[in-house]
Parts: sequence; C-alpha cells; structure tokens
Amino acid sequence: MEKKITPRSEDYSKWYNELVVQADLAENSAVRGCMVIKPYGYAIWEKMQAQLDKMFKATGHQNAYFPLFVPKSLFEAEEKNAEGFAKECAVVTHYRLQSDPDNPGKLRVDPNAKLEEELVVRPTSEAIIWSTYKGWIQSYRDLPILINQWANVVRWEMRTRLFLRTAEFLWQEGHTAHESKAEAIEETIQMTNVYANFVENFMAIPVIKGKKTPSERFAGAEETYCIEALMQDGKALQAGTSHFLGQNFAKAFDVKFTTKEGKQEYVWATSWGVSTRLMGALVMTHSDDFGLVLPPKLAPIQVVIVPIYKGTEQLEQIDKIALLLVEDLVKKGISVKYDNRDTMRPGAKFAQYELQGIPIRLAIGPKDLNESTVELARRDTLEKNIYPIKGIEEVIVSTLENIQFNLFQRSLDFRAKHTTKVDTFEEFKSTIEEKTGFVSAHWDGTEETEAEIKALTKATIRCIPLENQQEPGFCVFSGKPSNQRVLFAKAY
Amino acid sequence: MEKKITPRSEDYSKWYNELVVQADLAENSAVRGCMVIKPYGYAIWEKMQAQLDKMFKATGHQNAYFPLFVPKSLFEAEEKNAEGFAKECAVVTHYRLQSDPDNPGKLRVDPNAKLEEELVVRPTSEAIIWSTYKGWIQSYRDLPILINQWANVVRWEMRTRLFLRTAEFLWQEGHTAHESKAEAIEETIQMTNVYANFVENFMAIPVIKGKKTPSERFAGAEETYCIEALMQDGKALQAGTSHFLGQNFAKAFDVKFTTKEGKQEYVWATSWGVSTRLMGALVMTHSDDFGLVLPPKLAPIQVVIVPIYKGTEQLEQIDKIALLLVEDLVKKGISVKYDNRDTMRPGAKFAQYELQGIPIRLAIGPKDLNESTVELARRDTLEKNIYPIKGIEEVIVSTLENIQFNLFQRSLDFRAKHTTKVDTFEEFKSTIEEKTGFVSAHWDGTEETEAEIKALTKATIRCIPLENQQEPGFCVFSGKPSNQRVLFAKAY
Repeated sequence: MEKKITPRSEDYSKWYNELVVQADLAENSAVRGCMVIKPYGYAIWEKMQAQLDKMFKATGHQNAYFPLFVPKSLFEAEEKNAEGFAKECAVVTHYRLQSDPDNPGKLRVDPNAKLEEELVVRPTSEAIIWSTYKGWIQSYRDLPILINQWANVVRWEMRTRLFLRTAEFLWQEGHTAHESKAEAIEETIQMTNVYANFVENFMAIPVIKGKKTPSERFAGAEETYCIEALMQDGKALQAGTSHFLGQNFAKAFDVKFTTKEGKQEYVWATSWGVSTRLMGALVMTHSDDFGLVLPPKLAPIQVVIVPIYKGTEQLEQIDKIALLLVEDLVKKGISVKYDNRDTMRPGAKFAQYELQGIPIRLAIGPKDLNESTVELARRDTLEKNIYPIKGIEEVIVSTLENIQFNLFQRSLDFRAKHTTKVDTFEEFKSTIEEKTGFVSAHWDGTEETEAEIKALTKATIRCIPLENQQEPGFCVFSGKPSNQRVLFAKAY
Repeated sequence: MEKKITPRSEDYSKWYNELVVQADLAENSAVRGCMVIKPYGYAIWEKMQAQLDKMFKATGHQNAYFPLFVPKSLFEAEEKNAEGFAKECAVVTHYRLQSDPDNPGKLRVDPNAKLEEELVVRPTSEAIIWSTYKGWIQSYRDLPILINQWANVVRWEMRTRLFLRTAEFLWQEGHTAHESKAEAIEETIQMTNVYANFVENFMAIPVIKGKKTPSERFAGAEETYCIEALMQDGKALQAGTSHFLGQNFAKAFDVKFTTKEGKQEYVWATSWGVSTRLMGALVMTHSDDFGLVLPPKLAPIQVVIVPIYKGTEQLEQIDKIALLLVEDLVKKGISVKYDNRDTMRPGAKFAQYELQGIPIRLAIGPKDLNESTVELARRDTLEKNIYPIKGIEEVIVSTLENIQFNLFQRSLDFRAKHTTKVDTFEEFKSTIEEKTGFVSAHWDGTEETEAEIKALTKATIRCIPLENQQEPGFCVFSGKPSNQRVLFAKAY
C-alpha cells in the first residue's frame, strides 16, 4: 500500500514523479505526453480555478469559449506566433474513420475524408480569437474587450513531465482588446499583479515579477511580463505570463476601430495565462520526503480527524466527539473529513494523509477521552501538540492561518538564501552549479551574451525584475557596461 | 443596433438562429461547425455548470480529467462504440508544421512528423477512461469509482446548428465503475433523476424520463435512459442521457476485480452526460418573438434597473434610490444591474434587456420620484405594474419565484396540449404532421416497425416512459398486440 518515496536529497526529479503519482495527483496516460489528472489533483486545481476566476471577474473580465481547432490559414496569419508554435502542433487532417478492409474489427482513417484545410489543435488561441474579434470590433465603443477562456491546449512536447510539461494541459488564457497602447500595457501589468497576488497569497509561493528578455518572449509579443518562482532544488519555474501583443494580431487579422475622433486605427492586444503547470510549482515548493504539503487555502481537505480506539464502545465515544467537532468546523467554513473506517489502521491513515498533504491531522484516542483532549499534528512542521478539545476550533483556525503564513515565509527564506549577487563569471558558474538558485548579475543587454551564457551554464535570464534597482556595473560575461542586474537561473 | 427577429410563426428555425446570435449567446466561427460561445451565453452555461456540479458532488461524484486524444487502438477496442462514432471522428495524424517551401510565409504539415498511431479527438471518453480504470481497479475495495469530467468533445457533424448540433461542444461526462449490475443500474437511474431534477427545477423545462429503444441506444450501451423535452415548435429534444454499459467496456479493456469472495469478475459500468445542447433547449422552450426568456435561477442578471430622466439633477435623484435598491437586492443574493449609461435611450435599453431575457426590469422615472414608486416589468408575461418603492425587494423576490414557476407551468401546459393519444396510423400521421408534439401510441416492439414509421413520418420513438401505464392494445402500425404505449415525435 504505502510505497516509500525516494528522498529529495537522493533524486529530486524522481521524488517529484513518485510523489505526484503516489499522492494521487496525476499519472501518465495511454497517450504519449498526456496526463490523467486524478480526482485529488483535480480538486486542488478546481480550488485554484475558482480563486483565479473570482480575481479575473473582480478585474472586469468575462469568460467565453472559442473553438479547439484553428484552420491552418488563420494559424499562420501572425507569422512570429505561427513560427514559434509550428514545431509543436498536433494537426487534424481527416474527419472520419472506416472499417479497415485488411483487419477485420479494426478501423483506419478514411482516405476519402481528408480535410480541405488542415486544423491545428490550439497551442494557444490568439489566432482564432483575433479572427473572431474582427467581427466584434468596429468602434471605440466596442472596446475594451476583456475575455478569459478556461480550456485545454496541446503543444507537442518531446520530453514531458506530469504537470510541468505535458502535450495537453489545462489553462486559462485571457485575451483583451484595447483602444490605446497605454491601456493595453496597463492591463498586461494588472494581470501580472493578479497572478503574483494569487501565487503568493493562495499558493504561498513567493514570486519575482519581471519582464522577459526579447529572446524569451512569447512568440508574437512585444513584451512578456512574468512571475518567477524558485523550487526546492534551486531551479526556477515560470509560474505565469502576461503579454503585451502590441498591434501584431490586429494587423494580422485586420482588426481596426473608429476612434472617438473618427480615425481608423489598429486595436491593441494583450494575452495572459497560467496552467496546470502551477500544480507542479505547488508540489515542488512545499512538499517533503513524506509527501505533499498543501497551503490550507488550496487544500481540498483542511483537517482530518482520525480515531484511535479499541473496540466499538470506544469508537462510539470518539464518534460523538468527532462528529460534533466536524459540525463546528464546517460552520466555520473549514473542510474536514472524519475517517473512522475500520479497514485501515491509524498508522496507515496517518501516512496516507501525510502523503496527501492534509494541513492538520487530529487524533482522538482513549487518553484523550479521559482528559478531554485532542492531538493536533501540523503537516508543514510535523509538530504534534495536545490541546483541550474545548476551544480546539479556534486553535485550528489560527493554526491553518499560521501554516499558510509559514509555508510562504519558509519559501521566502529559502529564496533569500538562494539568491546570490555575483560579479565574476567564475562565481556565476560555481553558484549556478553548486549553490544553485537565482543569480543576480549584470548583463550587457545583448542576445549574444545571453545565448553564450546559456550554452556554457544552462542558466537563462529568468527576468528583469520590475522593481529593479538601477546600478552601474559591468556585464558578468562580456565586461561591457550595464545599468542593472538581471536574474539568471536554471529553469523548468 | 436592434434588428428585428423573425417571428416564430413565420420561421421557427430562423427565429432560433437569429435569437441566439442577437441575444449574444453564440455565433458561428471560422472553423466549420464549431461555435464561439459569447460571454453572455457562457455566463448562462456557467450557472448551469455550477448547479450540476453541485448535484454531482452531492451524489458522491468527484471531477477528474482525462486526455483529449484517444489512440486509435484504444478507440476501436469496444467495437459497437467505435462503430457508432467512427464516421464522426476528427483524427490527428501529424504533430508538426513546417515552412512551406513553395509558399513563403506559409506553413504546411511536416510529412516527416506523421504519428505512428493516429489519435482520435474524443467524441466521448469511455475508451480512454476504461483503459485508465484498468490500472485503478484490482479489488472490490477500489469500487465504486464515481467520476465526472467537464470537457470538450468533437463529433464531426455534417449539418450543424448553434448549441443544438456542433462539431465541438462542451459537456460533462460521468463514468462510473461498480461491482454489481444492480448497483450500476441504480447509478444510471439516479443520474437520470438528477438530470430531470436539474432541467425541471432550474431550467424550468418539464421532461419525460424514459428508456430508449435498442435502435436509439448509445453505441456500446445495454440500456440508455433519457429525459425528453418538448420545444415550442412541437419537436422533441433529448436533454440528457444516462447509460448502463453492462460489462462491455470492462471486457474490451479487460478490467476485472476480485470480489469479496475472492472471485475474478468484470466490472460494471455507467456513463451519463449533458451538454451545451441544453442551451438550445433553454432558448427554444421559453423564448418569444422579442428575444430570450430566462428562468430566474439561471439568469446571470436577474434584475435590471433603468432610470428615465431629463437632466443631471433628476438622474442624480434616481441614482440615489437605485443604488440603495441595488445594495438591498445584492444582500438578498439577487444579481442586479443598474444601467444609467447616458449613451443609450431608455427605449433601446428596454429592447436590449428584453432581447437578453432579463427576468425583471425596473424603471424609475420623474413620476416615480414624486410618488415614491417604481415600474416593474416581467419578462415572461411582459406585464408592467407600478409598486411603492418601499417593500419592492419582497415584490422582486416573490416575482422571481413566480416567473420561475410560471415558465415551468407554461411549458407543462404546452406539453399537455401537445401530447396526443392515437390509435390509428392515419391519426398518427396527421397528428405528427399538423398538431405536432408527442404522440402516445402502441408499438409492437420491433425495430422493423420503428424504422418504417420513421421512414414514413420522420417521427422516432423518443422513449418508453419510466412511469408508464401498462395497458393492452394493438400496434398503431402493424396491428400486432402491445402492452404499453410509447412516445413518438419528430426530434432535434
């Protein structure tokens, strides 16, 4: 039943893969590179979705739904975007199967059902959406359009990992249309802030907000804003991106509007997205060798109660206390599970709930019955304490808050310890290789330097932080003058 | 701005198409047969989703997510299911595009990126899910599995209509696994009841619960339960189906479990689904020549307030009253919009909200200011009444309830008037052709008779109602003995 997970120190990557499967989050499917998101993993994703959706609506966005398929001629209209995704496109070429005359009981693609124009399974929806917006936008009165879509997308990745990189993944993609450049940029920044707020305050993961260098931008964007997080193995993970698309898509799809002054102008665009990749970030930031650790705000079950008993009579006594407690906690909006199954021993239950990252585990045993107490175990610190059952609800509420806070603080401390200012390339290389984490270094601003550093160290520029101090210095690689440090790291 | 919709009496089909587009529910996309669900339409779908999801969870189901693609070899494993859907399958054959050497700036499918095995875009997910369940089920302890998935599916339809029949549509599909036939049948019936409850009590559409005849069953099912609704043009619409799949998929994917007695047995299955097709049913059941009519429980905006004024001073006075009212209504959980835009005349606003089916419209004008009154217009009956502003919240609450009730009752009356018992085939034909609606008639139980009736009249057996009176009679077509009536109709 309980297999041991490989410790992080032994093999971080293996630890991750085993944890995701054993904690019942997801598994590989029969389709190359596509995953099955299991009910427990999906329940966490649903909590993330619900919160994000609320935040999108609070900032004036509405949901809509656009087709899964993009006709090739639309897909290729914005050339940079098309070029950027062409190598990863799943393509539908036929619309019918038929009995295979050579293999009774088998099917084959019907050669007479070839599509006149191939359909790309959306890797992202700018093309199909902007071809639609063309019909919606005539005048400044039709702007802004503030739309979000929850959808599946497909990018044919050669090397996949559960949540972090899968051929099909779930995401949301915002696509907005504006009458001015300034307004579009403001939207791009607003959504970067929404993402940072969500990831920090709900996922308990500190992030650096920044801009991507031109070579790391989204294909078709004029500016890509991002939030970057640091995983426990010292590698960075891009947790969300928000793109200022300029007028590129408006030009590709000829989307103009009449301004208040009666002129015809191209519309300004943004797009922004986060995906099930965030699940990977959640796992890798907080979890430990015993399994998943979840921030209380995203835990499908926040509290589990396990009875420890001998015989029916004791169980009945514990049941009474536990069920009252469940009722009280539910009233406080806390999700709680009472696990009095008699088919599993308490120790096995403890291990299972540790593996699944339930923030608080309560145990009630014979001694507790006598003394009106309860044992509370925190998943984040693994500390156990005995509390009087009277007033335990308040302890639980404040402990949940404390766990949420502690997880964030712990990650913040980790990041602080793993962010290193370096001024020589030797130091750069050894830090990236040995200490790992973010390296803050001067860069001369050229793509050539960026590419050479990447080739030599596998580290990329994660971002130019938005709240960046301007300071004169010299590029860590070329020695050319620079006016600010940027953040390098190896990344997922 | 406001185009008139073709009246139902003139062309029901045209009325439907125009209404869906003009009320901003959906529109056709650049992809053949695929629709764009616009924000207003999507907001209604979200309300439907939220309620259904609640009902699924209340009956013990969890959500999960399975791949979009089904490898051909898995797809064809359950032969009847495969055969039933083969003609409608979009097939991915390649995973990469490349620059087209003959057309600079254009892309083409990379001939070197052909998949070894073609991937079917899921038309339904039994195959991929049961191939997954094989890994999840060993013993009776692993059962039941009660999973639902919210997803997009693709069925390559030749003749499409917004919501009613589209190549891609959104739906939920439940897939459950059980240790006994009885438990699986119970689940199938339970979900039929959940659907009926939702459609009747939230969509305000009365339905007949029944079983399909063998020829109308889902491909691969042993029994298909359905709920059938009647549209205003006298045609039936299948609003949801729940399938008892027997052990067909377990056998196709070799999914066995160890029983409590230690024997190896095949697992029993069900699947059940409703889709964005319900949006079509919602439109066609309640709406009128002025536009959409929405049941309050599914209306994204339940109450709209429109000020009627001359000059800023009057507007300011009305603003004060309206904003207080908005606050009170929000407290009562009512969704309300105050539309004091000065860019549109009240008459145009009235027309727009009629078109969009907002259940209650309040108007506050100069006379109301003097007399502390407000005009309340009901969308369902188009009645207007003046009420004192004091106490209007209670009037609104009860009017919303009354509209919900009235819409259901009106449809129920319509259905009663359009359900006809017939005992001769002459009567059958003339009823189907002229009076339309459900025809209740004896049937000899043979596929031949069913097929001949369909060929002659286009009417199909919609269902054998679950709560059916057993009565001896003679088949309306063949004259052979029969022990119950079944429901015939032309259908969407």
